[in-house]
Parts: sequence; C-alpha cells; structure tokens
Amino acid sequence: MEKEKFNVIVVGGGPAGIISAVTARKYYPDKRILLIKSVGKGAVPCGIPYMFKTLQKPEDNILGNAPLEKNGISVMVDEVLSVDRKGKAVKTRSGQILPYEKLILAIGSNPIIPPIKGVDKKGVFPIYKDLEYLKGLKGELSRAKSILIVGGGFIGIEFADEFSDIKGLKVCLVELLPHLLMNSFDPEFGELVGEKLRAKGVGIMTGKKVEELLGEGKVAEACLSNKTCVPTDLVVLGIGAAPNTKLAEETGLDLGRGKGIWVDEYMRTPDPDVFAVGDCAGKRDFFTRKDLPVMLASTATAEARVAGANLYQLKVVRENKGTIAIYSTYVSGLVLGSAGLTESSARKEGFEVVVGTAEAPNKHPATLPGTEKTKIKLIFSKQSGIIMGGQVAGGICAGEIINIIGMAIQQRVSSTELETLQLATHPHLTSAPTMYPLVLAAQDAVGKI
Amino acid sequence: MEKEKFNVIVVGGGPAGIISAVTARKYYPDKRILLIKSVGKGAVPCGIPYMFKTLQKPEDNILGNAPLEKNGISVMVDEVLSVDRKGKAVKTRSGQILPYEKLILAIGSNPIIPPIKGVDKKGVFPIYKDLEYLKGLKGELSRAKSILIVGGGFIGIEFADEFSDIKGLKVCLVELLPHLLMNSFDPEFGELVGEKLRAKGVGIMTGKKVEELLGEGKVAEACLSNKTCVPTDLVVLGIGAAPNTKLAEETGLDLGRGKGIWVDEYMRTPDPDVFAVGDCAGKRDFFTRKDLPVMLASTATAEARVAGANLYQLKVVRENKGTIAIYSTYVSGLVLGSAGLTESSARKEGFEVVVGTAEAPNKHPATLPGTEKTKIKLIFSKQSGIIMGGQVAGGICAGEIINIIGMAIQQRVSSTELETLQLATHPHLTSAPTMYPLVLAAQDAVGKI
Repeated sequence: MEKEKFNVIVVGGGPAGIISAVTARKYYPDKRILLIKSVGKGAVPCGIPYMFKTLQKPEDNILGNAPLEKNGISVMVDEVLSVDRKGKAVKTRSGQILPYEKLILAIGSNPIIPPIKGVDKKGVFPIYKDLEYLKGLKGELSRAKSILIVGGGFIGIEFADEFSDIKGLKVCLVELLPHLLMNSFDPEFGELVGEKLRAKGVGIMTGKKVEELLGEGKVAEACLSNKTCVPTDLVVLGIGAAPNTKLAEETGLDLGRGKGIWVDEYMRTPDPDVFAVGDCAGKRDFFTRKDLPVMLASTATAEARVAGANLYQLKVVRENKGTIAIYSTYVSGLVLGSAGLTESSARKEGFEVVVGTAEAPNKHPATLPGTEKTKIKLIFSKQSGIIMGGQVAGGICAGEIINIIGMAIQQRVSSTELETLQLATHPHLTSAPTMYPLVLAAQDAVGKI
Repeated sequence: MEKEKFNVIVVGGGPAGIISAVTARKYYPDKRILLIKSVGKGAVPCGIPYMFKTLQKPEDNILGNAPLEKNGISVMVDEVLSVDRKGKAVKTRSGQILPYEKLILAIGSNPIIPPIKGVDKKGVFPIYKDLEYLKGLKGELSRAKSILIVGGGFIGIEFADEFSDIKGLKVCLVELLPHLLMNSFDPEFGELVGEKLRAKGVGIMTGKKVEELLGEGKVAEACLSNKTCVPTDLVVLGIGAAPNTKLAEETGLDLGRGKGIWVDEYMRTPDPDVFAVGDCAGKRDFFTRKDLPVMLASTATAEARVAGANLYQLKVVRENKGTIAIYSTYVSGLVLGSAGLTESSARKEGFEVVVGTAEAPNKHPATLPGTEKTKIKLIFSKQSGIIMGGQVAGGICAGEIINIIGMAIQQRVSSTELETLQLATHPHLTSAPTMYPLVLAAQDAVGKI
C-alpha cells in the first residue's frame, strides 16, 4: 500500500505553522498538506505567563489541532532531522522520508540561556513552549517560597506580575539595563510598570547583572554584579529567544545578519520551494531595513498568511514594509503598547524627530465610574512629518489603541492627518472628542515643528 | 474707556466652538479671541443620556469654561442675533456690537420636532443641550411610571438603556424603520441592541410610527400607526437634529443640499472671513461627496481643528476627504461601532461590494475570565479592493477597534493589506493573533473576490 504523498509540508506547530497551513488550504484547496510538530501538546505562547495562577488549569492554554483538523490538514508528531532540498524531501526522527513540493519552516525559537555560572543547576527554568514542561514548573512553584526572574522585558514583567499573585511567594526581578522594557519603551513608560510591580511587592533590581547561581545541585542563591546575593528557590530565565535555524543552516540556507533564516518579501528562502515564517525567519526594521530580532506571534501570523497565500503563485503583493515590532503587555490592569521606534531608538539611529505627548481620561466626563488615564507619546520625523513610532499606557483598551497607532505607522500617516483624524468617541468607551489623546499628541508635535 | 476689541469671535460654546477657539489660540498666539455662548451651563452632548442615572448628579456632565480660561480666551454669555458681514461685526441680544476679523460659527443644531399631533403637550421632551432643562427632565422622571422614546437611532437606544436602569420606570421605544440603528448598521448588528434592550424589559416597536399624542394638557397616551395606543407619562423625542443655520441664512450665506452651512475643505464659507464648524456646517460623504447630515462631536472637533489652524493662513493641507460618519454606541456592556458605508447603504448607492465577516473571542485563550465575543463585518469595493466600511460589536474595547477600522477607511487600505496587517495582540487585551477578527474578516472578503 502506497503511503499518502503530501504537496505541502509545514514544519512546526506554533501559531506560524498553524496559520501557514490554514492559509495554504484556503488558497490551494486541492493540495494535500501535512503539519509536523515535535511536541504533542504545545502551549499558546503568549498565554504561558497565565498558566500559573490566572488560568484554572495549564490545559486551558493548549495550542490544539482543531483548526488544522477542521481544514483537512494532516498532523504528525515527529521531529524533522534534515531537509534534502535537491531531492525535495524531509527525514524525520521516526525514520520517515517525506517528499514535498513546497516546504514551510516554522520552527520557532529557543530561549536564550545566558552564560551565567551555575545556570545549569536544578531549579533554573528557561521558558519552553511545552505543556508538560510548564506543568513541571507550576509544580515547583507550589513548593517554592521565592523566585528570581532574570530579564525585565515583557516576558519577565508578565511572569513577575503573575507570580506575585501567588500567595506566600516572594518575587524578585533582575534587569541588566537601567529601566524595564527598554527595548520597546522609553523610560517614562517602563517606569510605570516598575511602580505597579513594586506596589505588588516585587523586588526590582535594574542596572544589575546576575553573575552566578549558587547552591548544592539545586539553585539556592543568585549573586549579582553589585556583589549582593539574593537567596532564591527558583530562577526563571526571561531574557529572550534566538531563532531556531539549525535545520536551515544544515541544509545550506542563508542567515540574515539578525541571525534568522533569510527570506524575501514573500517569505521565500533563496530556494523558491522552501519558505520560512515566524520566529525562525529573519525580520527587517520598517524604517531602516536593518535585520532585527523581533519575535512576536502577531508578526509570525502575518508572515504565515503571506507565505500560505504565495506558495505556488505570488497572489498577494506585499510592500517591502519590514516589522514595526508592535505589541502590548499587561501588568495588573496597567496596559502598555508600543509600535515602531521609541524616541531613544530613533535618536540612536540618527533620525531627526519631534515628539508629541498627551494624557486624558479614557471616559468622558471623567466623573464616570471606572475612568482611568490614557497616556500617549508619538514620535514623528521632523522634516517629513510622518509618524515613526508610538507608545501608550492606560486601561484595557490601550491594547487596541496601539493598533490604531500601528495602522498609522504602516500607512505612513502624517502628524497633520492625525490631528484632524475622524474618530469614534463615546462617554463609556473613549476619551472625549475634545481631548482624544492620539489627536492631542499629534497636535503637540505639530506645534513643535 | 475703550472696550477690548477681538480679532476672532467664536459663536457657540459646544465642542466645536471650544476646540475652534483653543486651536486658534495655539496657531495664532497674539490674537484676542472671544467665545460667545447662549447657555451659561451647557451639557457635554454625548454624556446627556448618562445624566439621569449613571452619573451621580447632572452637574457631573457640565461643559465648562476651564479649557477656554486656561487658554486666555474671553467668554461671554449672550446670544448673537445678527451678523453684519460687510461691516464685519456681530450684534448680540444684550445690544452689543462686536467687530471681528475672523468669525467662526459653531452654532450647532436643534432637535427635530416631528409633525406629530399633540407633540407640543406638556411631558414631551426634545433633547436640548441645556443643563437646567435636562435637570427638569430628570425631575419629571423621578415622578413618572412610564416613558416612551420616539426614535431608535443611537440617541434613542442610549436613553432607553439608561432609563431602563431606573427602578419602577416602564420604558418603550418606537422606531419607524424595520430595525434599530438602521442609518449606521446593517440589521444583524442593530438586532443585537434590540435583544439587549428587550432583555432589560424595554418594549421595542419597530416599523411603527407615532401618529398622535393624547392627554389633557399633559401627555398620557401615544397612538401608533398600527392603531394601538400606549399609555405613557412622558415622551422623549430622539429622532435627530437639524443644523442651526438661521444666523447664516439671514446674513446671506449658502446652504448645501444637506442643509448645513456650505463650507470648503478649510471650513470657510463663501465669505473668507466667516468659518462654520460642527453640526451647523455642511458635511459630505467620504465615498460619494454627497451632502450628508452627520452630527457627531468627533466630526465637529476634527473640523474645529481645521478651522482654528487655518483662520488667517491655510496652514494645514487637508485632503477633500468627507465624513466617514464614524461612531460608537453602548448598551449595557454591548458596544457597537460603525464607520463608512454599511452593506445596505453601499448597495443602495450602487457600489459593487464584497463583504467579509468574522467572530472571535476578545481574549486568548478564551478560557480567560471575562472573555466576550467580537463580531466584525467589513465592506470592500469588489474591483478596487479598498475598504469602504466596517461594523463591530463586542465588549468595551470595540470602541477603539472601530477607530482602527476608521483609520483604514481614511487611508483607503486594501483587503490584502488588512489581511497581512501587523497587530499587537495580548491574552488579556485582544483576540488571538491566529484569529484577530479584523484580519479574518478581510481574509473572508479576499476569498470571495
């Protein structure tokens, strides 16, 4: 009996893999599609911080196969060990050799393990997107009295927020840079998160490095660059991830300078039958075209839609836009969003910019119950007047306000266009039309040009 | 002693007047600016429905003079009776003659009083934006057992929602058209509001006309086109407003076919020293350029910013965009937003359109507490592929999601651009990156082209 042959093979079961496969099904309904994933039960990546307390059980955060099955996509739990590009086939750990017409690599990233002495001790947890592994960490947490988080980026602060809700657990966070969230926010925004976490009892140490982890077999103490040592039962490493490019390198595909797999605007590697999407694929900055290590599920799924649509024919024309690194984060009711360049990153890059800021209540009149403040900062090119970046802090809906800003950046909207933008406003839902902070921040910037 | 002379006179103390004056101050810091308002204490227009129960006291919804005083703008409570355009001066009720260099008419609109027999009886309330008047209505409400609202547009449904929270008050709503909110939503969205209100005990009668109001002096009964009569203690008229153009007509300024004061792209009337903004000024549709009676505070303030900046010199270049009639409304936790054309209005106008729809939980995983559904419908031009309209229903943040759609419409974004849009997503804040409904709705439409 001859085995089923597949036209399209997707390697990787994260959001990028799933959306590639589902999109390919939409555009090429007659192709047979196989998705190979190495972990049977993966976790929804951005939901991982909430598996320890917020969600009733870790299983509530499973990245399931339902959307694949619903779309007639075959799923196999196995590991692809090598790609034979000449023969157009992949070889798996279980020994299968599977031919393909089109191959999509959606093999993600690996957490970065920093070169700290003692980092391999028991009780030190990098974040792997594997349900069973994370359940193990949850078990450890229930027995721990204290935990140290290494890294004050969005992963680190979301873990700190979640862990600080666990009764009896002392939480500390160490960040090398002078402020939290410095890769995506200017200091005055990162500081808002610091205040929130400190108010919840989290010990925050910025501008400090973890130099050594001590303990007999299991970690018991972390020694910092300022020569103090902090006793701790557990350590979580939240300093980011590196593209998983092993498979691509071994089969002779290029890496970009950002170290991801090189892809063109249609997510094609130099081999027209091999695509790469998501964390494993290289990204370029929207404004500079420089290689940039941005790893976000939203970027990954946007790329997956491009790849899925363009597998056999370039159906969707895509401008060479690059990533605007748009994302939002949440700490105990405080929402922060960022898109494009920060003021610091823009100036560092050499852009002449003008900055506008505004604050306003997020309902109107502000006497309505539940009113919070929305704070917005916009960065414009001084001469060309177009928006280059934005940051927002506020209540829950700041998570969508950053998407208004993101749309503006992607459309290269000018400050004067923003100033006279037509917006929906409502007492219960938004700031007043007279003081909608996106408009006021644009106006503030225009006044400075 | 010579009286102070003003360079700029703004007539009207609503959002359009306030923002015109404040913007003029920003762009022309050396000009003396006077704002003349006819009502000492006005109400924030969009907050009016919430003065009867939600807000602790009606005074919480005062439209104050603080932004004016802070910006060194003189304020006078008086009524402008006539404009002498040749002599460049206005005459007020108190007998003053005030010369101007630039005049801004921000004289708003008047509630439409439908030609219903008995509409002048006591107990029948059009909605005037006057604090004392509205306090009078609140007093009547405390003594009433039942109230009938005429009109199922956003004013009518917001009043119905608020009134239905008042204990012991029976609320009915009559709408002439077959569905609620038909001017801005397709029936499947308006119907969601109907369900909400009915669940709160509001009696909703669509496709019916109020033909006569009966009662000895005071209203006691409303008789409908279906020959039934509904007993009621009070009637609120919420069928819309008409531009207040008396002053403009008397001084010989043109009206557009939409009956507002004719203005160019810079809010100038044919007289280059007289501007008109807000409800009293004519509006044009974004897609057809037809005159359109849109009266929203957000449109008014956008116009006011254009006028204020361009009083003496055309400083801000503005594309001839027209109004996208973007707005949101709220009924007991359900949010609806609309921008641009609906499917029905687009087809009626003769556009060949393709429609995409999607629904998704507004958090991810959907097991997170407080998860609600977001429902989106997008309307695209079939041939040119650009977005012409959008509607959203969902939780609180749908109030900002409609602003993402509004930005897309104003930037004439295509369905394939939306399909690969970069978006911020977060478990607590948005739908999952794999099923962000704006992207899925665009994808749904692309699949149909």
